[in-house]
Amino acid sequence: MKSRLYPVMILILVFLIGISILAGEHPKISKHNDGLHSSPIIHNKSVAQIQCMENAAYERNGALANLQERTVSQSVQVQMKDTKQSLGARTLLPTPVWIIGTYDKEGKSNMMTAAWVGICCSQPPCVTISLREATYTYSNIMERKAFTVNIPSEGFAKEASYFGSVSGRDVDKLAITGLTPVRSELVDAPYLKEFPLIVECEVIYTYKVGLHTMFIGEIKDVKADASILGENGYPDAKKLHSIIFSPGSAEFYKTGEFLGKLSELRKKIQE
Amino acid sequence: MKSRLYPVMILILVFLIGISILAGEHPKISKHNDGLHSSPIIHNKSVAQIQCMENAAYERNGALANLQERTVSQSVQVQMKDTKQSLGARTLLPTPVWIIGTYDKEGKSNMMTAAWVGICCSQPPCVTISLREATYTYSNIMERKAFTVNIPSEGFAKEASYFGSVSGRDVDKLAITGLTPVRSELVDAPYLKEFPLIVECEVIYTYKVGLHTMFIGEIKDVKADASILGENGYPDAKKLHSIIFSPGSAEFYKTGEFLGKLSELRKKIQE
Repeated sequence: MKSRLYPVMILILVFLIGISILAGEHPKISKHNDGLHSSPIIHNKSVAQIQCMENAAYERNGALANLQERTVSQSVQVQMKDTKQSLGARTLLPTPVWIIGTYDKEGKSNMMTAAWVGICCSQPPCVTISLREATYTYSNIMERKAFTVNIPSEGFAKEASYFGSVSGRDVDKLAITGLTPVRSELVDAPYLKEFPLIVECEVIYTYKVGLHTMFIGEIKDVKADASILGENGYPDAKKLHSIIFSPGSAEFYKTGEFLGKLSELRKKIQE
Repeated sequence: MKSRLYPVMILILVFLIGISILAGEHPKISKHNDGLHSSPIIHNKSVAQIQCMENAAYERNGALANLQERTVSQSVQVQMKDTKQSLGARTLLPTPVWIIGTYDKEGKSNMMTAAWVGICCSQPPCVTISLREATYTYSNIMERKAFTVNIPSEGFAKEASYFGSVSGRDVDKLAITGLTPVRSELVDAPYLKEFPLIVECEVIYTYKVGLHTMFIGEIKDVKADASILGENGYPDAKKLHSIIFSPGSAEFYKTGEFLGKLSELRKKIQE
């Protein structure tokens, strides 16, 4: 019985030697510190790199190392393997909800909901909005080189949805919703009186990216209702109650609870 | 006493004639229908247009119309005037929180928090992220022409804050946070195993906009933990719990309650 254990013990010994060779390649091993992920994690080694190291070990140690290689490979891949599901090449990230205010050729105000949007520069302060050429707002911006961004509070979710579902070519969306366009004194576009936070933009660049065109708007001013301002004079998300769009399922969500100030949160990471 | 009333009656008469002239210019008057704003609202007339009409009336009616003009002007401006406060030309809109994953020249993984971001095209599916040249991630993307977008759930708020507060040139942010980079099989960049939703991007355009450079990344795949998917197979914001950044006050917020499906919300507007 004892003699039958020797090959097994040799295998284990070779396995341990192999492990020590791998360890000699300096993988950083640390423990995840949030209590949720207690298994050791290897940093800074990709699966490909580790596979390469394993192949070298296989060549060094010959046939017996075959077992070792497969065992290590499996254990490493269990750590590195990610169980995420592929959803395909799609635009499936939560986005802000902006209402874009423009004038058409005749000076009629129009509002359109856009979610392919974002801040894109601090100096000069700029935003980007992406529109299809087919939209009424696209033509309006090409004509006027200006637009406003109007941030709806959650109470205007139905208007925000409506503004994104019909074209200003077919209906007068402002007359139907009863919202009030106010002429910007800074740019050639109207903003919405009833919305708590608005931004006046002048187009400085236009980039075509596939089906959409990106308009880069330089921010000329931000205007806010006093009711949504915090003590520091900035918009307070707790009072603004802006809307989040979830593509794919095409749903609106509220802005939720305060998570923390960045300056406080980052202190929780121990360097 | 009676004779002293005549000038007043003439004034009222002239005032009413003035009003009817203005009404002849077809302002659309509608009532706001949400019960909160009960005063009549004039659509599609800017303050400037109305002022122009008033000036014409003033010229027609001479000195007596002076009083009329001022009265009309006041009443119209009460309706049109917006009480918003100017906050200046600043980037003060709520934004998503994305962690950008890249490799440096030597293949070291880095993660950086970005909020000047957004979806920017549907076909091909693209995102834009804006970075300053001074950042480590900027150099990495210029080198590798690829990045990942990693969406932190609210439980990773401290990591998201930390990733935005230090440079990968100075520290190994992954070693410190204990998070796991996984090599993308589609693009030359790592994504975070622990984050519930990730996007693999290949850079197809680069645009310089002032202090920031916009990288347009074509989405090659979206990957998600099964735990955040809804019945329709799309990411469910109720399960994803992504973070919102409020610039100005530099705070993080949770994603809040479900407001509605767009297809349902828009039906609440009566055309």
